[in-house]
Amino acid sequence: MSLPGSLTRLIEELQRLPGIGPKGAQRLAFHILKTPREQTERLVDALRDVKERVTYCSICNNITDVDPCAFCANDARDGTMICVVEEPQNVGGIEKTRDFKGVYHVLMGALSPLQGIGPDDLKIKGLLGRVSNGVSEVILATNPNVEGEATAIYLARLLKPLGVKVTRIAMGVPVGSDLEYADEVTMHKSLEGRREV
Amino acid sequence: MSLPGSLTRLIEELQRLPGIGPKGAQRLAFHILKTPREQTERLVDALRDVKERVTYCSICNNITDVDPCAFCANDARDGTMICVVEEPQNVGGIEKTRDFKGVYHVLMGALSPLQGIGPDDLKIKGLLGRVSNGVSEVILATNPNVEGEATAIYLARLLKPLGVKVTRIAMGVPVGSDLEYADEVTMHKSLEGRREV
Repeated sequence: MSLPGSLTRLIEELQRLPGIGPKGAQRLAFHILKTPREQTERLVDALRDVKERVTYCSICNNITDVDPCAFCANDARDGTMICVVEEPQNVGGIEKTRDFKGVYHVLMGALSPLQGIGPDDLKIKGLLGRVSNGVSEVILATNPNVEGEATAIYLARLLKPLGVKVTRIAMGVPVGSDLEYADEVTMHKSLEGRREV
Repeated sequence: MSLPGSLTRLIEELQRLPGIGPKGAQRLAFHILKTPREQTERLVDALRDVKERVTYCSICNNITDVDPCAFCANDARDGTMICVVEEPQNVGGIEKTRDFKGVYHVLMGALSPLQGIGPDDLKIKGLLGRVSNGVSEVILATNPNVEGEATAIYLARLLKPLGVKVTRIAMGVPVGSDLEYADEVTMHKSLEGRREV
């Protein structure tokens, strides 16, 4: 359809992003054509800044501008409780609850034999080192799916011999949902984890 | 949720793009964090190139790398037939049919009193100039909605006195659809435009 070469190239690059297909990429590219040059410059700067400035915390592997990260450097956080998550974006979900005052450890993935991800591909060694230095509880907050569950079981086996309390976040029916739509595995976990009222 | 400042800024900039909400922007930003630096550089270059290289054809207002555009500069295209569209992206849809061998004229919008877009905001003057130079037919391919229809009627009134044949693309039930789901205005246009078989 004979678009200018530079536009075709932008559409190709935009299509590489997750959740953006050919139609979406074309729509974005035409939008960018129309927007003022300064706005595109701000996007370009933001893209470059992220790649240049964001690094990973040398203690917990969370993303950060400064090393150690805001959680690890904060004395007000309880360093004896470590919450283990798969990805940096999982930290935000837990912080939103305002319930957790401890520190984090980001594994950078989960065990997945099918995708060829084994224990050596995850940041487990650092976690073991941290636990040896007087940690009282490790909360395993990996995803409630096959990979996350396998990772949690694997970590529990490694951590328990170190004499630390190891817990797993509760699985059950989500708040605000309808029991009618709960799948049987969730229902099973929900019954199994029932508590006296 | 205490993300690094540069990441927050990228999420904000991505949210300005059409069809990308807060969750989508966060997902894209985390994806960009993970991708190799070279891939982000290619995206950055493509964004800059589009803003620097793409201009509008001085004859038909279509987007182009070189002026005049590939359609206006191509002697194999029939310069006596002009297809009028609202936006540069509409040209692609007509080219895909391989039915049209004439040239284009991009209005850069449609009449819309509600949005304050009047005749002076559209590239109409150039069209009138072109039509005076021996054009045989003008096909009005503005959108089949209120604004496109109003624009077509307005242009027809301006063009007919110049002695040129003015046509409007057919409106009717789309091919492959089911009559059951056709709205009454489309059905009305479809009956009105019926042809002998």
